[in-house]
Amino acid sequence: MGENIGAAARAMLNFGLSGMRLVAPRDGWPNPKAKAMASGAAAVIDGVRVFDTVAEAVADCDHVVATTARQRGLFLPVHTPQTVGTELQKWSGEGRRTAMLFGAEKTGLETDELAMADALVTIPVNPDFSSLNLAQAVLLLAYEWSQAGGQSPLFESPYEEAPASRGVQEGMVEHLFEALDRAGYFYPEEKRATLQRNIRTLFTNAQLTEPETRLFRGMVRQLMRHLPEK
Amino acid sequence: MGENIGAAARAMLNFGLSGMRLVAPRDGWPNPKAKAMASGAAAVIDGVRVFDTVAEAVADCDHVVATTARQRGLFLPVHTPQTVGTELQKWSGEGRRTAMLFGAEKTGLETDELAMADALVTIPVNPDFSSLNLAQAVLLLAYEWSQAGGQSPLFESPYEEAPASRGVQEGMVEHLFEALDRAGYFYPEEKRATLQRNIRTLFTNAQLTEPETRLFRGMVRQLMRHLPEK
Repeated sequence: MGENIGAAARAMLNFGLSGMRLVAPRDGWPNPKAKAMASGAAAVIDGVRVFDTVAEAVADCDHVVATTARQRGLFLPVHTPQTVGTELQKWSGEGRRTAMLFGAEKTGLETDELAMADALVTIPVNPDFSSLNLAQAVLLLAYEWSQAGGQSPLFESPYEEAPASRGVQEGMVEHLFEALDRAGYFYPEEKRATLQRNIRTLFTNAQLTEPETRLFRGMVRQLMRHLPEK
Repeated sequence: MGENIGAAARAMLNFGLSGMRLVAPRDGWPNPKAKAMASGAAAVIDGVRVFDTVAEAVADCDHVVATTARQRGLFLPVHTPQTVGTELQKWSGEGRRTAMLFGAEKTGLETDELAMADALVTIPVNPDFSSLNLAQAVLLLAYEWSQAGGQSPLFESPYEEAPASRGVQEGMVEHLFEALDRAGYFYPEEKRATLQRNIRTLFTNAQLTEPETRLFRGMVRQLMRHLPEK
């Protein structure tokens, strides 16, 4: 909804964030209701970039944290808003590109979208009344990000040791999926989604560097020479 | 406005607060718009107590903190939301009655009303875009109150699991080497030692857990079905 997008833009700017990306907005883009609701934060709306999928939206990001109220069986680290604010600031301080990922007002993020992140963050609300709207969730995370901004990074990490960007990691994982597909690994078909999710989080947790992803893809390429065509 | 009262009730209940008091509400009381907006937090609205003045509203309270964007020359301690959350929890733990005081949406609290408090709290917003609505201010303070109370996360991270033992990791790596060998990956033979070393450190750095090593070996096993015997 345009109103939610506008309210989220306000909440971001309240704590100094301005780079907003949207994935497949329901009512298309631009959306006059978003701009009207954003009011003084219209500049955030003017700078919005729109993408078709979550994967494309985060392709150039090095670290992605996704908000969720439930764990959905994913093997990813789970943060509070406070610890994630600290992590995001630490990464930014190292020159890494970071993103916070939020789902639509009613439905939240799908499990496959959560699996694109390298960490989950859950807001510790009252379990008996846990319905936060989208802009409130954005507000709390932007607030904690801003709070953590006073802290300097715990230690410097040389660039070569940093994990590859999400897009590079995703390219490697898709390459592996193609090989596994040709090898008949995703069987029965109903298990495909779960297997792919678990494999994706395995590699996310592994935090491979870019040279490591090249090494890995070299292995996959050679294995594929022996696999039947699909 | 009834809508602001209802939204504030929701924000309170999101973080476990339920005792709301109103001072001279503009549209009288009860207000159907407040209850409609409160939705699942209607119980907070039903429990509202109404007073004519701030002094009467806080008469039975031992500690009152008042929200303000400006200090207005008052000689009162100024807190951040975080430090005030800690103070309020400490006072509650000593059996003291505490209150947070918020002004109307447009105008905030008057200087004489702030002077009824024994501490001020100001939310560290972006100075270039500082307009928070009432419910958002309530949300942030209720959140910090809840945080200071040691609110536990809704779910624990499953990713506490330690990396698999060296032996388990080495078994996985040897399994992969066997597959790569059968695929003719180690070519020319002189490069074998370097390639194996780089692959081994890739997986050492990845710090896979034991379930992840089993997942990985499952992939290797299936790929091997398509590889020539050595």
